[in-house]
Amino acid sequence: MNLLRPLPDARAAERVDELLARPGLRLMRIVSLGQANPPGFWYDQPEGEWIVLLAGSARLRFADEAEARLLGPGDCLDIAPHRRHRVDWTDLAVPTVWLAAFYG
Amino acid sequence: MNLLRPLPDARAAERVDELLARPGLRLMRIVSLGQANPPGFWYDQPEGEWIVLLAGSARLRFADEAEARLLGPGDCLDIAPHRRHRVDWTDLAVPTVWLAAFYG
Repeated sequence: MNLLRPLPDARAAERVDELLARPGLRLMRIVSLGQANPPGFWYDQPEGEWIVLLAGSARLRFADEAEARLLGPGDCLDIAPHRRHRVDWTDLAVPTVWLAAFYG
Repeated sequence: MNLLRPLPDARAAERVDELLARPGLRLMRIVSLGQANPPGFWYDQPEGEWIVLLAGSARLRFADEAEARLLGPGDCLDIAPHRRHRVDWTDLAVPTVWLAAFYG
């Protein structure tokens, strides 16, 4: 399997594929194309989430930070359980491919 | 942090960085530049290992398959516990960047 080709068509909605599901671990590929969370929405998750951008570009905002972080290919970060965050923006011109590991 | 830049110099030896360590999960970045396992060597691991190639090119061989698999960017696979495997070859010209999730 390849995570970059073929990519599902994400124009109408973000596409999510589960790559692996084991006790305490889920690996997901998420393909975005312009989607973002609605104003005022925050994720507040009981699990930890580690992410890396494989392609594209996105802005991720933490509730405890003043500025959104601009992410590009190779950028990764760990989101602690219950650390509130949101996706402010994803690129409209090229697909953004996220690999996310939910754990714990 | 970015997994693709800067890359450590792997000419003398493969470089391994732990990205995340949680109960039941370790995420590692491995950078190879021409390294391969010695003839006759096989990994035989108690943990499951899910890998994706972020850059470069490698040949991974399973003991239960006749041919090595050629991997390029975006290629991923899951290696079950104790499924014997080895790295036959990695590109000498450009760094090969692996993301590996050891679980269970």
